[in-house]
Amino acid sequence: MANGREIDIELLFAGDRVAIARAISAAEDGRPGAEELLRQIFPKTGRAYRIGITGPPGAGKSTLTNMLGSLYRRQGLRVGIIAVDPTSPFTGGALLGDRVRMTDVETDDQVFIRSMASRGSLGGLSRTTIEAADILDAAGKDIVLMETVGVGQSELDIAGAADTTLVVLVPESGDSIQAMKAGLMEIADSFVLNKADRPGADQAVHSIHMILHIRGESTWAPSVVKTVAIQGEGIEDVAQEIAKHRLYLERSGEFDARRERRLRERIESLVRDRLHVDFWDAARRSLLKDRMPAVKRKELSPYDMAEQLVAHFHAH
Amino acid sequence: MANGREIDIELLFAGDRVAIARAISAAEDGRPGAEELLRQIFPKTGRAYRIGITGPPGAGKSTLTNMLGSLYRRQGLRVGIIAVDPTSPFTGGALLGDRVRMTDVETDDQVFIRSMASRGSLGGLSRTTIEAADILDAAGKDIVLMETVGVGQSELDIAGAADTTLVVLVPESGDSIQAMKAGLMEIADSFVLNKADRPGADQAVHSIHMILHIRGESTWAPSVVKTVAIQGEGIEDVAQEIAKHRLYLERSGEFDARRERRLRERIESLVRDRLHVDFWDAARRSLLKDRMPAVKRKELSPYDMAEQLVAHFHAH
Repeated sequence: MANGREIDIELLFAGDRVAIARAISAAEDGRPGAEELLRQIFPKTGRAYRIGITGPPGAGKSTLTNMLGSLYRRQGLRVGIIAVDPTSPFTGGALLGDRVRMTDVETDDQVFIRSMASRGSLGGLSRTTIEAADILDAAGKDIVLMETVGVGQSELDIAGAADTTLVVLVPESGDSIQAMKAGLMEIADSFVLNKADRPGADQAVHSIHMILHIRGESTWAPSVVKTVAIQGEGIEDVAQEIAKHRLYLERSGEFDARRERRLRERIESLVRDRLHVDFWDAARRSLLKDRMPAVKRKELSPYDMAEQLVAHFHAH
Repeated sequence: MANGREIDIELLFAGDRVAIARAISAAEDGRPGAEELLRQIFPKTGRAYRIGITGPPGAGKSTLTNMLGSLYRRQGLRVGIIAVDPTSPFTGGALLGDRVRMTDVETDDQVFIRSMASRGSLGGLSRTTIEAADILDAAGKDIVLMETVGVGQSELDIAGAADTTLVVLVPESGDSIQAMKAGLMEIADSFVLNKADRPGADQAVHSIHMILHIRGESTWAPSVVKTVAIQGEGIEDVAQEIAKHRLYLERSGEFDARRERRLRERIESLVRDRLHVDFWDAARRSLLKDRMPAVKRKELSPYDMAEQLVAHFHAH
């Protein structure tokens, strides 16, 4: 089989756990067969609803993801979870994985959970996450939950890959404002104020509403849902808000628009990768190497060097 | 003048504030003359020592940056500060800027402070930050402090652009571990445990040392410096640690190696941008547009579409 001998694509379509795990590993490691596999499963993708869950460290994203997964399972849906953990390249895995807390869904063999490590490149991470979501989608999952930690590019990428994006915040002073400054406001389809039993919860909800007001009118108005995820409080409200957003997307035509945009970005990213490989062949690598001393001596600027390299590419 | 009429390069080299501000704005806006300007100033760059200051939101990075800036000023050094604020694209600026607290250095006209907004692209942000650092360098600053919020790609980029990278953490439970999981460990040349007058400070220092131990032996062993930046406590220790690291870099040859790597990455990034522009001309944009319906119907995979586009590029 062209996709790498060990992955049986029919078993994958049937939702087989081992086949799913192998397929995701192949994608994560960028194995030669992985792209052929992704090409083969592409026609089977597009069924699963993809939910992004993001927010600052310590907001309780893992617990919320756990609880949402359990809720969907009780509704008889098949659930896949991808936890994006931009963890240390030197350990190759989480030092203290959040996943150890996810006992509820982890003992449920209809839920497939996968933690992803960044291995130094968050750009690569977002690509792998999207590929893993496609694999879970093709494997028959109804819901794919994508959880990502931090405040940075990875959130924006994950938001781009999700149908509905939840931004999880906590009442602690400053946190919500910091998160908003970091650009989380734009990507939120709904806010979850977790740990809402702590002091300052109502104040935080108020702050979010204030800033939503600044953000101005739009056809979709994000709500702020209060939860105490660790106790299961408010999880149904979150699910209801997701359902409401899904209905809005479908009725407004935004659902198709988002998915088309996602495909377009995928193509652009694949083009970028291919051009990079084509460009940095032995000839151009040695051209750069030869002229680096002049760049270091400030005789040749990086701008001129880049131009010379591109000219070489077009001439050959 | 080819770099855009309004910027006098001799005034810039002389450290003129208006010339610096205009040059950074030109780079930030990606104006046509900006690249020519950057090309012209390139031979004057490389003098300034570049310090990256990063860590999770709320760690007190701005205060520390402020205090470090003041300390260097008292030593008679010329200081430039770049605050990377991946802020909301819809406001085009910080909602509640950290900068309002930076009264000490802000009233000092020998210190040039610039906040940068992300405008939606963190990739673009890191490029602009490096360009701003070059401008401050060419304008005669001895020290360029680059402060960046969040936990994500932007930190990695800024660390790549700095000679010494400080990672600022606080004693709050979990925070330090979360930060380490997010890959901040690898980029830290030195740790600053700020707000060290709060409970749990010694415990946090201990945790960091533990994880440094896991990270293993290296020729440079990052230290953990305790500060209460808001009261100015420990700032001299931080400066001393930076000086120690600088000496290490210079003696080990790592200084030149880092700077060469930085130039190389700059060239690669410029090549990527140029290829992107060359690639997405009218012909390929219309090819993609024509075939998108087939991709949406799942008849053509993104992989095949990307291949067809690249083949078209190589054939023309």
